Amino acid sequence: MKENGRKQGAVSPCAACKLLRRRCAPDCVFAPYFPADEPQKFANVHRVFGASNVNKMLQELPMQQRGDAVSSMVYEANARIRDPVYGCVGAISSLQQQIDVLQTQLAVAQAEVVHLRMRHIPF
Amino acid sequence: MKENGRKQGAVSPCAACKLLRRRCAPDCVFAPYFPADEPQKFANVHRVFGASNVNKMLQELPMQQRGDAVSSMVYEANARIRDPVYGCVGAISSLQQQIDVLQTQLAVAQAEVVHLRMRHIPF
Repeated sequence: MKENGRKQGAVSPCAACKLLRRRCAPDCVFAPYFPADEPQKFANVHRVFGASNVNKMLQELPMQQRGDAVSSMVYEANARIRDPVYGCVGAISSLQQQIDVLQTQLAVAQAEVVHLRMRHIPF
Repeated sequence: MKENGRKQGAVSPCAACKLLRRRCAPDCVFAPYFPADEPQKFANVHRVFGASNVNKMLQELPMQQRGDAVSSMVYEANARIRDPVYGCVGAISSLQQQIDVLQTQLAVAQAEVVHLRMRHIPF
């Protein structure tokens, strides 16, 4: 058990504790969501939100909601790293534009349906 | 000029420097975007991203993009405080659902247009 330089309690640290160079306690708040084999996942969240904020945000949530919170933070962090100016707000704008286009197309199609149906009404 | 306890250089600090209790330098990176009269704007961004991350993210951007970056960070921070589990990713899911509904409605309307047009084709 001396291979990784530890004499005892040699539990492999999670990705967060590894990056933060701290002991990964059995009740580590990060460990269930940031496994050691996905280091980039925590690195991005840490870069955007900061480990201490992520820790605080998770601690404030019940256990059963933490997985979803981590997923949404990872999504936001990745978006912010990809697009440092707009982050995932860029995706929101683009989706809203798509909705505008679809609503216009739907209005046009529905108006045409009404118009075509009118032509079938017998005089 | 002694009213606020300063003898000289008594420039009113921006909301960020006020919260962080530091001197607001003339080249403060926060000052153009976080005026003293909007303390909550910085408080939310600080709570979610952390002042040092916001500082770093702004420093890495050219001046002309920083205003948009601040707006998107403020939006994200407000969304995360309102919804600590999903943040603004909740808005993205909801917009995507709206798009799915609209696409279905559009497909139905367009199919009806085709069907009604067929009835007008003379045999």
